[in-house]
Amino acid sequence: MQQEGCCQRDGLPWSGRGTQLDISGCRFSLYPMDSDFVPLILGALGKTDTTAVWSQSDALSTVYRGRLPYVADAVRGLFINAWRHDVHMALEGQFSKGCPGDCDGDSLLARQGPPPNAAQVGDKHFPVLCKLALYPMGTGDYIDQIAQVWHMAEAAGLGPATIHYATRISGDVHQVFDYLESVCRLMEESVPHYILHFTLSVNSPTQE
Amino acid sequence: MQQEGCCQRDGLPWSGRGTQLDISGCRFSLYPMDSDFVPLILGALGKTDTTAVWSQSDALSTVYRGRLPYVADAVRGLFINAWRHDVHMALEGQFSKGCPGDCDGDSLLARQGPPPNAAQVGDKHFPVLCKLALYPMGTGDYIDQIAQVWHMAEAAGLGPATIHYATRISGDVHQVFDYLESVCRLMEESVPHYILHFTLSVNSPTQE
Repeated sequence: MQQEGCCQRDGLPWSGRGTQLDISGCRFSLYPMDSDFVPLILGALGKTDTTAVWSQSDALSTVYRGRLPYVADAVRGLFINAWRHDVHMALEGQFSKGCPGDCDGDSLLARQGPPPNAAQVGDKHFPVLCKLALYPMGTGDYIDQIAQVWHMAEAAGLGPATIHYATRISGDVHQVFDYLESVCRLMEESVPHYILHFTLSVNSPTQE
Repeated sequence: MQQEGCCQRDGLPWSGRGTQLDISGCRFSLYPMDSDFVPLILGALGKTDTTAVWSQSDALSTVYRGRLPYVADAVRGLFINAWRHDVHMALEGQFSKGCPGDCDGDSLLARQGPPPNAAQVGDKHFPVLCKLALYPMGTGDYIDQIAQVWHMAEAAGLGPATIHYATRISGDVHQVFDYLESVCRLMEESVPHYILHFTLSVNSPTQE
């Protein structure tokens, strides 16, 4: 499967962003630790309104692309739609914007109005564990950006804790998604290119 | 849980690497899509020889730290030990070295001799799908580094294909781990700080 428009690709000469358009994206994988994982994944994908994003799935992951509020809304909707009280499940993903190798295509940018999944999932609440790692690219002061979002998590009451190669936070699912989206908004204002990797986990049997 | 020595942390002033020692690390999560995921994960962790690395697990992931050959050997051993012919399973992880916020502790560096898992898992073979994303930090020419490892994958016969925000490859499990380790070796010679995110997937029911 060969596609155009990505960051991790062959050796063309790039300079600056690959597109000046307002295209954010999120590539993610949902991992239900359950033998019935296929209907769980397909059911969640089916219940999620993806009319506001460009979407593509393969054997490893799904990607949503478009304007950040709609991309973030679709990922949040997908995860909340997938949640079951008795299933340990993880969502691994990466938000990103500004890749020098990005392209103008593969996105929906004309959408207006409220994000379409908010009404359906907004009143569903459950606690999540999260780890995240932020990569502001092409800048020497990336550690300052990382420190800033650490303090944002502290201010949001998410209890950030440092672990090797990542930061852990925890809170209600909406608090955590609000925070991830706010980090993306800050980064698109601060750096030309960023990637925010995250893991969300629910119903883990591990006691800490 | 508050720990010291990580990259994604609060706002101390850093410059250069946090340690001059030869410490690499890998943080990873194993996701068996099976209701018996607990014995699958604990069984794989138990069968893996971790005497050559520093190791710590929490509810979200496990981290191995030490010299790269031993870290890579332990992760490879863990994944091959976890494999079952009838279980769809993913391994999500990030290799890294050179974080400005890293510390001298939490590692084993005195180990000598062959990696301890190689003999046990070396003759087990199965096909894996993989996606990866490389982040050379603090450098303006990071796209050149990414292009270089893309061509390494091509030369290794792993059929790299560009997808948004990542590269896909596929091959025998040992070919893929050899490649990931060779990318880490190249990066530790080329840039002061890198992170290599990867996803390995086996026995996916998705037909492409």
